[in-house]
Parts: sequence; C-alpha cells; structure tokens
Amino acid sequence: MDKGLQAFIDKLDSLKFDNMYENDFYFTWDKTDDEISAVFTVADALRHLREQNISTKIFDSGLGISIFRDNSTRTRFSFASACNLLGLEVQDLDEKKSQIAHGETVRETANMVSFMADVIGIRDDMYIGKGHTYQKTFMDAVTQGHKDGILEQKPTLVNLQCDVDHPTQCMADMEEIIHYFGGVENLKGKKLAMTWAYSPSYGKPLSVPQGVIGLMTRFGMDVVLAHPEGYDVFPECEEIARKNAEKSGGSFTKVNSMAEAFKDADIVYPKSWAPFAAMEKRTDLYGKGDFDGIDELEKELLAQNAQHKDWTCSEELMKTTKDGKALYLHCLPADITGVSCEAGEVDASVFDRYIDPLYKEASYKPYIIAAMIFLAKCKNPQETLKKLAERNQPRLFQ
Amino acid sequence: MDKGLQAFIDKLDSLKFDNMYENDFYFTWDKTDDEISAVFTVADALRHLREQNISTKIFDSGLGISIFRDNSTRTRFSFASACNLLGLEVQDLDEKKSQIAHGETVRETANMVSFMADVIGIRDDMYIGKGHTYQKTFMDAVTQGHKDGILEQKPTLVNLQCDVDHPTQCMADMEEIIHYFGGVENLKGKKLAMTWAYSPSYGKPLSVPQGVIGLMTRFGMDVVLAHPEGYDVFPECEEIARKNAEKSGGSFTKVNSMAEAFKDADIVYPKSWAPFAAMEKRTDLYGKGDFDGIDELEKELLAQNAQHKDWTCSEELMKTTKDGKALYLHCLPADITGVSCEAGEVDASVFDRYIDPLYKEASYKPYIIAAMIFLAKCKNPQETLKKLAERNQPRLFQ
Amino acid sequence: MDKGLQAFIDKLDSLKFDNMYENDFYFTWDKTDDEISAVFTVADALRHLREQNISTKIFDSGLGISIFRDNSTRTRFSFASACNLLGLEVQDLDEKKSQIAHGETVRETANMVSFMADVIGIRDDMYIGKGHTYQKTFMDAVTQGHKDGILEQKPTLVNLQCDVDHPTQCMADMEEIIHYFGGVENLKGKKLAMTWAYSPSYGKPLSVPQGVIGLMTRFGMDVVLAHPEGYDVFPECEEIARKNAEKSGGSFTKVNSMAEAFKDADIVYPKSWAPFAAMEKRTDLYGKGDFDGIDELEKELLAQNAQHKDWTCSEELMKTTKDGKALYLHCLPADITGVSCEAGEVDASVFDRYIDPLYKEASYKPYIIAAMIFLAKCKNPQETLKKLAERNQPRLFQ
Repeated sequence: MDKGLQAFIDKLDSLKFDNMYENDFYFTWDKTDDEISAVFTVADALRHLREQNISTKIFDSGLGISIFRDNSTRTRFSFASACNLLGLEVQDLDEKKSQIAHGETVRETANMVSFMADVIGIRDDMYIGKGHTYQKTFMDAVTQGHKDGILEQKPTLVNLQCDVDHPTQCMADMEEIIHYFGGVENLKGKKLAMTWAYSPSYGKPLSVPQGVIGLMTRFGMDVVLAHPEGYDVFPECEEIARKNAEKSGGSFTKVNSMAEAFKDADIVYPKSWAPFAAMEKRTDLYGKGDFDGIDELEKELLAQNAQHKDWTCSEELMKTTKDGKALYLHCLPADITGVSCEAGEVDASVFDRYIDPLYKEASYKPYIIAAMIFLAKCKNPQETLKKLAERNQPRLFQ
Repeated sequence: MDKGLQAFIDKLDSLKFDNMYENDFYFTWDKTDDEISAVFTVADALRHLREQNISTKIFDSGLGISIFRDNSTRTRFSFASACNLLGLEVQDLDEKKSQIAHGETVRETANMVSFMADVIGIRDDMYIGKGHTYQKTFMDAVTQGHKDGILEQKPTLVNLQCDVDHPTQCMADMEEIIHYFGGVENLKGKKLAMTWAYSPSYGKPLSVPQGVIGLMTRFGMDVVLAHPEGYDVFPECEEIARKNAEKSGGSFTKVNSMAEAFKDADIVYPKSWAPFAAMEKRTDLYGKGDFDGIDELEKELLAQNAQHKDWTCSEELMKTTKDGKALYLHCLPADITGVSCEAGEVDASVFDRYIDPLYKEASYKPYIIAAMIFLAKCKNPQETLKKLAERNQPRLFQ
Repeated sequence: MDKGLQAFIDKLDSLKFDNMYENDFYFTWDKTDDEISAVFTVADALRHLREQNISTKIFDSGLGISIFRDNSTRTRFSFASACNLLGLEVQDLDEKKSQIAHGETVRETANMVSFMADVIGIRDDMYIGKGHTYQKTFMDAVTQGHKDGILEQKPTLVNLQCDVDHPTQCMADMEEIIHYFGGVENLKGKKLAMTWAYSPSYGKPLSVPQGVIGLMTRFGMDVVLAHPEGYDVFPECEEIARKNAEKSGGSFTKVNSMAEAFKDADIVYPKSWAPFAAMEKRTDLYGKGDFDGIDELEKELLAQNAQHKDWTCSEELMKTTKDGKALYLHCLPADITGVSCEAGEVDASVFDRYIDPLYKEASYKPYIIAAMIFLAKCKNPQETLKKLAERNQPRLFQ
C-alpha cells in the first residue's frame, strides 16, 4: 500500500459516514460535516489511484442514467467521466427521443429506465419549485420500485443541479479552495465574497449562489453574499447559511455592494443570477402556458439587469481584495467582457489570469461525482480502496 | 455450482435449440417451442446470476447497434441494458446525424456500421409492409458481407418491433404470465383476452396484438381476440394463432365485444391499435408523398376510434373477469383515463392496482433481449453459463 | 506467440516511429515513411488479434471524445469501433446540446471535455481554412492544460477529416491498395488516377483528393490528378505530392481530362469535390454572415458542375484502364447514376462490380484509427502486442 492512499484511508477511518451507503445526494446541507469530508477524501483517493494508472472500476457492468433538462457540456462530461471511471456506461434519457410525451408519469419513466441502473444523474434547474420536486418524485418512484421487487437495485441519485442546490459544482469549487489554501484547516477567518454580477443573458439559475452560501459557510470562513436589491436568493438557503456560519465559528452577512463584498476578500465568486421573485413568476406563467407573458418578463429582467452593469469583476475591484490577489472562482462558462459579450461578469484580463485555478476547479467535478457514487455503493469504502490498490489493475495496459 | 443455476442448465439440457446459434430473431413463430423455452430459461438464468452479483459479461468489447425509426424509451433502455449486461457498447445509428440522406442503400449502411457489430437491434414499426422488409434487407446485406469476408462476424438481429411482430415485448409479457401463474404448466385452459381498446391517439402499431396472438396461443390457453369491426389484424397472424392453438390444445377465437372477451378471463390485454386496412392505405399515401391525404386519413381514423369509446378497461368490466381478478397486461405506456387523456384504454384505478405486475412485466424485457443475444452467440450456452459461475467475477467489486 | 503476430512485430522492429508516442495525427505528410508503415502494421496486427478472438483492450477505462461538425455515419462508427476495440468509451460532444453557444472559447471547451479523455477525434471539413485551425487550437489548449497540471493526460488527436487532409480515409484506401496488390513492394510503377467526377450535390470537401495525392505519391506509383479547369485543390498539397513522387521514384502529373487519367490506370478514384477558390469565397461569405451570397454561390457552383456531366466513371471509361480492370476506389457514399441520383460520379454497373473491394476498403478505417491511437499511447507497441497475445483474454468468452 502506498503512503498516499493510506493517508486517505486513515482520514476516512476518522469520519462517520455510514449513512451515505445506499443513499442519495440532493443537497450538501442534508449531509454532516463528516459526510462532506468523506466525499472530498474519496474524490482525492480516486484521483490519486488514477494518477498512478490503477483502475478504480468497481462496476463490471451497469448503467448511469443521465437526464439533462437543460443544455450542458461540463456537467455532462463530468458525469460521463465519473461513471466511466467506476465502470458504468452512461445512457442518456433524451426526452425528445422518448415516448414520454405520451403523457406517462414520472413514476413510470423512472422505473422503466432503471432496471439495470446503478446511478441516476439529473439536471433540472430551469423552473423554481420544479427541479428538486422532479428529482424527488423520480427517486421516490425507484425507491418504491426497489421495495416492490421490480428493480434489483435502488439506483443512487446524484443531483447534477436543481433549482435549489448545485452540489457537484459547489463541492468542486470547495475542493479548489481547500487545495489552493493548502488544507481545510487554513480556511478559518478567510473572507469569501459570493456576489451577483451583470450578464446580458437572462434567467441564470440561483442554485450556484445558494449552493455556495449553503456549503462554504461550514468551514469557519466569513461568507458575504452581495447582490443588487431585488436579486434575493431562497430565504431558506440564507437561513441554512446563517446556521452553518454560527456552528462553524465563521460568519454570514449580506450587503448590497460588490465593492464592500470584495474589500479584503480572500476568495471572490462573481456570477450572475436571476431574481428569485421573477423566477417564481416565470414558473407561474409557464404553468399557465403564457408564453407572451414569459417573453414580456424576459424583457423586463434584461432591462433590470442592465441597470447594474457596474456589478462586474473589474481589475479595479480585484485590486481591493486581499493583497489584490483574491482567488477568483466561477462555475463556467463566464460572461467575459469583450470576449463572449460586450459587457459581462468579469474583465477579460482578470479571467485570463485565473485560467489555471478555474480549470482546476472544474477538474474536481468528475471526482466529486465519482466519490458520491462510490460512497453510496460501497459498504466499506476504505476496504474497497484497499482492494483496488491490491488488485492493481492498470488503467492503461502496456 | 448453486442449485438455482443448475436447474436452469438442466432445463436447457432437455431442449433442442442449436439452430439459434448465429441466427436472427425476427418472429416468435419462426422458432420452435424448445427455442422459445430456451429464451425464457436463459433470461431467468442471466437474471439469477446478476442477482447474485455475478458478472455475465461474455463480450470484452464489441458493439450493439441500435436503429430506432420511431421514438422509444423502454425498448431503447432495455436494449442498452441487455447489451451492457453482456459487455457490448451500444452505438445508436441516428439517421438524422448520418449521411444516409445522400441516398445510400440499406446494403451499404448495413455493412458500414457493422465492422465490429455483434448485435443489431432495429425498431421500425411505422409503416405496414415496410418494417420487416427493412430488417430483412439489412440482415441480408450483413450476411452477404460476412460471406464475402467484409465483416469478421455476422451480427445477430434482435427485432425490437416491426410492422408484424414485437417479439421482445410479447416474450416479456409471456414471462410475466408464466411467473405470475407459477409456471408454464399451469397455463392450460387459462383464458387470455387480447382486446382492442379506445385511445385518442392514432396509428398505434398492430405488432403487439399480432405478436400476442402469435405467441400466447402456444401454451394451451384459450386466446380470444376482440376488436370492433374494421380493426382487423394481419390475416397471416390470425392463421398462425389458429394453428398454434390447435397444436397446443388450446383455442383461438375472435369476437366483436370487449365484454364477451373479458367474461371469466384470467388475463386481459386491452390495448389500442390502428385498423390494418387504414395502415395499408397510409403506407400507400406515404409512398406517393401525399401528406394531405395522410392528414385526412388521420382525421377519419380518430373519428372512427371515437365511435368506440366504450371499449375501455373499466372497473365494471374487470369485475366480470375470473374472480374479478384477471391479470391486467399492457406494453406501456397506456392511455389512462383521467391521467394521460380524458378517455382512454383503461380506468386509472384499474391501472394503479396493477402497477407492480405491469412494471415487472416490463422488467423482463432486458433479460429477454440478452437471452436472444446469448443464444445466438454462444455455441454451448449451458457450458458458458457454467463458466460464468466458475469465473465468479463480481458485477460490483467491493 | 503465433507466427502471424510475430511477423507484424518483426516488421515494427525494423521501423523507427518513437516520435509517434504521445503525438497527434493531423496530416499524413507530417509523418515519416516508417511512421506511416507502422500505422498499417499495427492496424493489421490488431485485426489479426481480433480475428483470433484475442482482446486488444489496452484501456480499462477512459474516454474517446468525438466532435462531428458535419454529418457522418461511417467515420462516426469507425471511430466508435476503434475506441471500443481498445477499451475507450465514446462520448460525443454534440454542440447543439452544449452551452458552447454561450460564447465560450475553444480553449475552455477543450479542457472541460478532456479531464478523462485519452483521445479526441474531430471532423471539421466544411469551411476552407477553418477545420485544421479548429483542430490545432483545440489541441494547443489541451497540450497547455496538460502542462499546467489541469489534465492528467494529454489526449491524442485523430483527425477525422479537416479542410486539408482526411488521413484515416486515405490510409484505409491505401491499405486496400496494398492488400489488393499483395504488398507495398508491388506498387512501383502502378498508375493511380485521382479524378474529379460530376455530382449533382455541392460543396464536397477537397480533403479526399488532397489526402490521396499527399499520401499515394509516397509508394513509387504514377499518380495522376485530373479535374476540369477551375477545380484546383490546395497548391500546397500538390507541392507535397510532387516532392513525395520525386523521393519515391514515382511521378505526379496533372491533366484536364478524365479519359487521359483513366488510360491504362491500375487504380481509379473518381470523386466529386468543390473548387478551392469557390470554397474560399464561401468561407468569406460565411464569415460575413452573408447567407444570400452563399445561396447564390451554391447555384453558381451547381451550374458550373453541370457543365461537366461527362466526367463520370462509365463502363466505357473503365474499359480503357489496365486490362479494363482497374481497381475502383471511393470513400463512400458515392453518387451513383440511376441509384442515388439521375447522373452522378459512377455508373451503377461499375459500382456494383466493385462492392466487395469498396466495402473492404471501408473496413480498414476502424483499424487505422485504432492503430493511430495505439501508437500514440503505447511506449513500446511491440511489447504491448506481445503482452496482449500472452494475456490471451478472449474477446468473446465462451
């Protein structure tokens, strides 16, 4: 056994996370600190093994079902990579090619695609109050199906983004922070600014800022949420952030100024999102099939956004952060001023300077997803990691 | 060797099915009783192994090509599951993304996608007189390609539904019946009602009722086919059903009343389909490119359907079945009154009561498909099953 | 070790190709004669092993990313087959389902899809001056990503067709020639006619004729390029052909007559393509978003094509080739007179007579692609081939 792997196993031995076995991953705040830590540790362990050309295939066959109700590149490829790393084949449920339009129930679809499914990955972030509900309905159906003897296994949910949380993204973001600052023990007292930023596009999901404040407040950091008036996120998520901060010895505050948030920040996460109230209205209009109303709302929102063009991650603002060198985070793709749009979330020169940490941030996602699956499928993850090292099957046979 | 697996192997030893090796699966009526029985037995054996976490991967690499000329969810996932279970990777031939529009021949396409294809699964059920012909042309091409040394292997066809038969569906239906009644030996004299039912949608394929009467008449049951006047199925399929019934000691009768069919039935299969004659007309119109004519025909057919709204699987009708408890079957998705449509094939309360057997019925399909492939690819299936048990490779490594 | 495999290994031992390790495959003319020969030899060795039911899976997990910016059937399936043969799972980047429209850079996309990618296959042949540039930009990005520690491995590019070359096609064509004439040593002095042919469709890529003259001139053959005035190919490719011919002791000549090219030819490759100058104009119009201009250009080009309907591979012309029996090649699908169009590139009777060699020609492509990957991934390919033979893992377990 190499020492690197042993360190991860020792770390896992110090944590309690048996409740993750055969469980699902909806929200980070459903999980204990130990469980969150276990995900990071297993992610690092899997990466460690792969870097040593040791196979981490625990599945000989089996399917990972993906459902993307919104376009996706990086999450799609992260899920595919995670499944492949563990030995699962991705089968995408493309609702356009299916008979679902016939009006069949989610209960039925869920069971029909799950006969040999070990994992279900769902992205459904378009409508407030819908995404999480869909995931829950889907998983209730397969849980029942498993109980009733229809499904041989209960597949595990990995929430690939809903209207409430984006756990695989925020945990990848968090792993970047941990590695960047040399360990979770160095984060106490660090200031993180999660701030709204201007974008010429409309209706971006709230799940990233919500996920960020819901997770990042657990590590003793001073988390500041900044946005213009009217761009509030779910009150429930703010409440979670408040409680987390209190428990972790950090803080959670809200301000209405990007400049105030950036001041002396160690980490900044400037990103656009839509106002919660407007998204609720949109869901209502959608429910009524009022597409003219939706178009009208879109125009209003773009006009509202345009009033806040000064909310942008400029070089000037970056200078005001800790030593002028805060870590810049983004879930990507960013709206880059002068590159992907005339005026956007971030100056091109800022973005370019942070390419390496940004791409590294994204590179954690496949491992985070794989770790979530691993912890849900392995009864004794430490034992399985040991056995993988002993099996010592090369990923690339030479 | 565990006793469960040994029983399946013993059963196979009692059957003669060597003609299935390197053969295709178009219609159930091409196969002998022993061959049909072998498919059920291998399906159960593969399921048994998987339930014991024993890998059934016989392919280390190789492709399963799927061609869906009609939308599909459950058949698509069943095929993907079956291929994955045996170690094949599914590669879908999406005719929209291909150069086939260039006017290339089926012969050419067939060979071009089959260089490393072990299995071809085709669904083509839209036009009477077309679906089977397409499958046959495709398979003739690859058979020739194999003979001419172009293809290293002759891929095996699994008919995933054509205009004539839907063998993977009907065999899954049949497996549900066998398991539900505790064995094929208990089916003698049972009454099965395959009946038309009202649906507000149009042009549903005839291959399900045809497949059902072509298969279910082989087990000594009393099979009744019921439909309103004008909704006849292929005469050839009725002829097959008649001969089967005679040989098996059961019966095959036709009635024009759903009530008569349901009376004392042990099994009911109420499902909509389009009139054969209308479907022939539609194929002609399509051949002429007469899309106005097709629209006109559609309207006529919907009006014709609407005259038979009383053909529905209601609670009242269910009460008239054997002990009021006939097994309700459907290939899914069903048109459920008040759920997926205003008035449809079945009452919501009936459908809901049978969710479990319905989903179990569907759960057999991946194994039926896998068994068809297994029997076409393994020279000595009993030997291969034994070797899989001896190899004892875990599906999930822990 | 069987003798067949040993012969391939001995051949490889006589060649120098270590520069292919961890390298990309853009153009055949980037590669030395030894390197080209190594690809053919590994392709044959992999085919040999597969024919003996010996697995050639060198990857236990890993992704092959495909990007098709133009429709494709055979290249798509060839790439999928090659990846599967070596153990990689294909993940297609469908730009329509992605967030790329957001305006993200190629640099970003390239890194985001490559976290676990061992191979990148790109087809981008639509616009002159764009396809190769896109591939190069993509690969520069992942090479940088690998250097910066973002990607654990640098994926290897396989050019699945760009605006300049179509190396997997032309090398498959070449393998057909080599096998047809019983070895590369028999090609000296053979006459190959790469000629334009009429097609009623418009804008066919130039990469096939360019790739053919750029590769086929390396084997001592007399290569003749024939086309009507105005249908020139890239001057750079002609220059490469000229130099190759000189070095190999063959010749490269240009004529303006199909008849002259066919006269006494041992091999003919009649195929339509668009005029280079027109394609440049099209790229400009596209750059300006001038779609009316593009439509106008299309009409002009079709009219220009129509002036050369006599450029067709007729029975009459075939009679003038060596013994009336030249080997007829095509990358497929061909425009066949009376089959896929009224008047096209080739007479139906000619095409039909050559079905077998044509399909065999296509059958080499998966192995050519696999060989390119194998040589880029294995530090010592001979050693790996030996180990695969020793491992002796059956492709189909029985």
